[in-house]
Amino acid sequence: MSDEQPKDHFKTADGVRFAGSHLIIDMWDAHHLDEPDVLRQALLDAVDRSGATLLHIHLHRFTPYGGVSGVAVLAESHISVHTWPERGYAAFDVFMCGDADPGKAAEVLAAALSPGRIEISTHRRGVMQAQ
Amino acid sequence: MSDEQPKDHFKTADGVRFAGSHLIIDMWDAHHLDEPDVLRQALLDAVDRSGATLLHIHLHRFTPYGGVSGVAVLAESHISVHTWPERGYAAFDVFMCGDADPGKAAEVLAAALSPGRIEISTHRRGVMQAQ
Repeated sequence: MSDEQPKDHFKTADGVRFAGSHLIIDMWDAHHLDEPDVLRQALLDAVDRSGATLLHIHLHRFTPYGGVSGVAVLAESHISVHTWPERGYAAFDVFMCGDADPGKAAEVLAAALSPGRIEISTHRRGVMQAQ
Repeated sequence: MSDEQPKDHFKTADGVRFAGSHLIIDMWDAHHLDEPDVLRQALLDAVDRSGATLLHIHLHRFTPYGGVSGVAVLAESHISVHTWPERGYAAFDVFMCGDADPGKAAEVLAAALSPGRIEISTHRRGVMQAQ
């Protein structure tokens, strides 16, 4: 099945060859932090909108104090989420290789959780050294 | 079951209060990149040595071209791995809250893959703003 193929071809931007982009996303004053169904749908929508391919998804809700940890494993790498409802805080990371667009995923996640404040840092992973 | 509890208490270092540390680890000239059993054991050993609690583990091997994507979901957050055997490259991230020690996990992963070169950057996640 073609979806089984790794979409992991290195890409080139600004003359730099690298594996993919990794977004570290912190959200504060965010909503739905203790609702695994909402978070699952947000991950699925983020995968879809970014053009990525889902291989596996797993979410865990902590009891009795609440909070969710979850991950979507992708042909292009992964999206993870960890939430602290008591602090209004959610930690996401979105790592995508190939043609998938992690920025689109970030937009979907932010729309789903409506945070009062969001911080995103972007890291190029697997940057090849010049020969 | 006590292991079910979230070990996600924020901590304080250098006067800063934050959720946990997130290590972004790039390995080059690494070994065992197309061996899911070795990588699974490396993740399990890393979880154990760091003092973390495993909730869920999943690894996927890409066929026919090789490479592995996997994740361990923890009570303290997660460890992920993505490998490109054809380039000798592995991308890990280790995000741990509470008392778990992500540096120990990084040591275990490096010992398991014996990379020729390793780059680690550390990010504090969920840094609280001063009141």
